[in-house]
Formats: sequence, C-alpha cells, structure tokens
Amino acid sequence: MSKYCLGVDIGGTTVKIGLFTKDGEVKDKWEIVTRKDEGGSFILSDIAASIDAELKELGIKKTDIIGMGMGVPGPITADGTVLKCVNLGWGIFNVAEEAKKLTAISNVKVGNDANVAALGEMWQGGGKGHENMVMITLGTGVGGGIIVGGKILTGSKGAAGEIGHITVNYNEEDTCNCGKRGCLEQFASATGIVKEAKRLLLISDKPSQLRDLQYLSAKEIFDAAKEGDELANQLVDELAKYLGIAASHIAAVVDPEVFVIGGGVSRAGEILTTRIKQNYEKNVMFALQNKAFTLAELGNDAGIYGCAKMVLD
Amino acid sequence: MSKYCLGVDIGGTTVKIGLFTKDGEVKDKWEIVTRKDEGGSFILSDIAASIDAELKELGIKKTDIIGMGMGVPGPITADGTVLKCVNLGWGIFNVAEEAKKLTAISNVKVGNDANVAALGEMWQGGGKGHENMVMITLGTGVGGGIIVGGKILTGSKGAAGEIGHITVNYNEEDTCNCGKRGCLEQFASATGIVKEAKRLLLISDKPSQLRDLQYLSAKEIFDAAKEGDELANQLVDELAKYLGIAASHIAAVVDPEVFVIGGGVSRAGEILTTRIKQNYEKNVMFALQNKAFTLAELGNDAGIYGCAKMVLD
Repeated sequence: MSKYCLGVDIGGTTVKIGLFTKDGEVKDKWEIVTRKDEGGSFILSDIAASIDAELKELGIKKTDIIGMGMGVPGPITADGTVLKCVNLGWGIFNVAEEAKKLTAISNVKVGNDANVAALGEMWQGGGKGHENMVMITLGTGVGGGIIVGGKILTGSKGAAGEIGHITVNYNEEDTCNCGKRGCLEQFASATGIVKEAKRLLLISDKPSQLRDLQYLSAKEIFDAAKEGDELANQLVDELAKYLGIAASHIAAVVDPEVFVIGGGVSRAGEILTTRIKQNYEKNVMFALQNKAFTLAELGNDAGIYGCAKMVLD
Repeated sequence: MSKYCLGVDIGGTTVKIGLFTKDGEVKDKWEIVTRKDEGGSFILSDIAASIDAELKELGIKKTDIIGMGMGVPGPITADGTVLKCVNLGWGIFNVAEEAKKLTAISNVKVGNDANVAALGEMWQGGGKGHENMVMITLGTGVGGGIIVGGKILTGSKGAAGEIGHITVNYNEEDTCNCGKRGCLEQFASATGIVKEAKRLLLISDKPSQLRDLQYLSAKEIFDAAKEGDELANQLVDELAKYLGIAASHIAAVVDPEVFVIGGGVSRAGEILTTRIKQNYEKNVMFALQNKAFTLAELGNDAGIYGCAKMVLD
C-alpha cells in the first residue's frame, strides 16, 4: 500500500496543495483561493475540506497520509506558532495544532514560506544532491532560505535567512523598505534593478535601448544586456556585484555547497548565475572559493515540495 | 558510580586536558607539551599516556569515561578527519579513529578549536542558557564559531564561522593575510587595531597619550580610550563599527540569541560589548534587533569545556 504526504503552501492569493509520494513525485496538485475574510479564519478549514474532497476522489484513505507540511508567509516558531501573517490577516496562534484538529492528520509541520521553498529546491530542484544550501529569491523583494545538514535553519526568532537586508553598500543614501540604507534588496530585487536603471539613465548620456522603452522591468534590462547594451550590462553587473558580496558574507557564516538563485528575476537565466559567481569568487576568502551557483528549478511549486519534505524528514 | 568525560584541546604549544562531570564541573585539568617532532606523530600517543597516568592517580576506571572530545587547530570533516594542521605538523588522517585505538575510549569526537571554544562558552560561559550563539574571537586574528540549536555549525568543508574574512570595508587598499582587502580581521584583531593606530597617529595631529608609548598594543589603546583619549576612542569606535557591521551580516544569516566576544582583545571588557552592540543595532534590520552581546568567561579553558560538551550531546 502506497503512502503519501501533503504539501500546503499558503499564499496571500492562493493556497497551493500537493500530494507527494515518499520519493518526491507529485501524484496530484491543485489550488484553492485564500479566503482572507474575518481575519483569515476560514483558511485552514477550507484547506481541510479541499484535502478531504480530493483524497476521496482519488480513493486515498487518510490513514495512507504520513503527514502534512505547511508553509506560511511570516515568521514561525519551532512549535508551529505564527507570530503574525499580515498577508493572511492572521494574528498569533498555533497553526500546527489547529491544522491537526481540522484535518485529523496527526503529523503536521509548519515553516516559513521562503524557508520551505529552499528545502523544496534542495530536495527536487536546483540544490538536489546537496545538504548545505543557500537559496536567494529575487522577486519584488529579496528573500532567502538557509539549509544546513538537510534541514531548514530557522534562527532564534525565525529571522534566519533575512539576507535581503544585509548591507552591501555603505554609501547608499536612499532608504530601504526596512528603514535601513544600502540593503541588498535595494539593488538586487526586481524593483531595485528598475530603480537603479532609472537613476543611471538620468545621470548617464550613453545611448541605450532602455531609453526607448515605455515600461521598464527587470526582464527588459536583462534582455538588453544579453543583446550587448552597455548600460544594461552595467546594471546587471551592479546587481551581480552586490549579490556576489552578499553571498560571500553568507558563505563565511554557513559554508554551503551551493547557492540556488530563484524568484522572478532568475528567469534571466545563466547570465545571472555566471556573473554572481564571478563576483562571489572575487570577494570571498580562499577556503570558501569554488561554490556552485545554480538556478531554481521548481518555480512556484518549490513551496509544496519543501512542505512535503518537512514531514518526510 | 560517577561518570566522566574528557576534553582535549590540542594547541601548537600545549595540549590542555580536562576531566569533567556530566554537569559541566571540572574534576581535574592539566597540560602537556605538544611534541611536534616527526610530523606531530607523538601527539596523540602522548595524550593517551597522560590520560592513563592521570586516571590511575585519581582512581578512575576507563569504563567510567563516557567519551572524549578533541579540538584541533584546523578544518575537520564530520567523521573526524583533519585536512591539514600546519601548527601541529599533521597531514591528512582520521584523528578520531587513531585516538580511539590509542586510548581505548570508543566514543571520540573531534572538532575545530574555534568551534569547540564556542560550544564551551555556550555550555558554561558567556552564552550559557542559549542554544543559538555566535562567538567572535578577537586575538592575533579574528575567528568565530556558530552554534545553532546547541550544536556546532561546521559547514560543508569545515569553513563555517570564518567571520574574520567578511569584507567590512570595500574601499580598503591594504591586503589581508588571506589575500583579500577590507576583511574584518584587518580592523578588529589585536594586530589590526595597532596597525590602524599607527596609520591614524601619522595622519592626525591631535594630541594623544598613545604618542608617548614605546610599545603599542590593543590593551594600551583600550586603556587610553577609557581614560578619555580622543584618538584612542576614535580607534575603538572604528573597531566597534566594523564588528557591528559584521555581526549584522551574521545575524541576517543565522539569527542568533547572543554574540559572545572572546579572545585577548575582549579583556578590554564592557566598553567593547557596549560599543559593538550600538553599531550592531544601527546596522541590522528591525526583525533582528535587540540581541545580547556578552563577554566570554572561560578564557583558555573554553576549548576543553566545548570538547567535553561534544561527547555529552
């Protein structure tokens, strides 16, 4: 008789749910809407009802479910208590205990969404085959997840891997969303590189195809860089420089085997990993050189993979 | 019948050995000379003989020894293999296996000396009561040890916690011993602050009691700072600034509860922890603020404590 586990990635808009075999194969996956009314109080019962319905349809008994992992967008303590999830409307309560009651699944583990995505990429994605991994997610912001010995490093208050707010430019005058100045997120996020582009286009009089664009996004900048646009390349180099510096700091702390680059910006592809690696090697001490830099492979599914992996460990 | 464990800290000059109760009390401690002749091939047998003699004198049977932890000055893999210990003359071999044979103690664990010292400070020193701790050792160089969930974080190649080589000054022109520029060690080590003092005394024409000293060491600089010397305070502030920046980087990766400051320079006392903390809070994001900064308490015994703790876990 086959045994399965569930991965449930709770986002601000949708909840992604995956049913996995123990070997990491997806047997089924589906999504439901995240109902945020009344302080998000329907979210967990919606998930429970959806799982019951789907398992019934697949002819799988609850007793065949080894456990359920859940990812939530916010800091979380070791026992599964969320401290606040602004995006879900949640206050402080024990998600794991509540989910156990509602689903009648006794083995429930809960983690932060960025951390479980990192675990997913380690298990079946860009970090496969490695137990010591750092994931850097370049989206609207810059997030991270640290995996040590195959496990998520949570930190004393759930803030380990907050690498978007490592200071990489001590001379920066603009303020980051976090209130500090010179954070990695200010230069290496999708919004950061666009802001830097606007700044550079103003102060430089070099020709650039970026000047002709009505709408400027990270994609256009990387595309132009690949086509040889000088200004665009300057912007990509700056982003890679700051990511290389941040990666060198991270390595000096946890000495990983591999850095996995994910998030929307990572669709730019190998231009990104190649240039970050160049800057990393320049900035890191000899004992920490020659690390691998790979691209994330699971996209938006990384979370459900990581959730499933949490309960298999 | 009481049970004991042994902590053996192998240094380049002496080997420190401690006999501990399970509760962390030192029953006995002693030192032997590190015999480095013939590629250090006598070191482990000297240790075995010394332990046998001491246990005999104390009337303790080998069967009462739960295990032995050892600290070595170099990188070490998870199974106890040293990759090279220049200070001991050692090449590549499995220290744990060799020590088991020579001592007839079957439970032997080996760790890097900086890491075991951090573990010792967590157990019975400046980090007592905490499971997530970062130790920063300010000596001739700057070393570190990262403790996560009560265990040493070793890293994929034993280089986790190499925090002395985090780049904290991107404009530095002098080269660090490691070959890079702007490493923490260049500013925050005992040699670093003296070098910075000489540089500052040359370019500044401010009066300072440091100008009258024939021999300048970190101690004189901190003493002068405490007496209100302006230049000395400028130097202490610079050291604290760079340590605060490095601590902010480290926190964004592992989110510890406490930073423990050790090594010779830490004898300066609270002036150091107070000023590092000020600079840390200034440089770190809100989710990581309000960490404790304490002084190491075990001095040169931190290593034997940490070695003993390794086998008790």
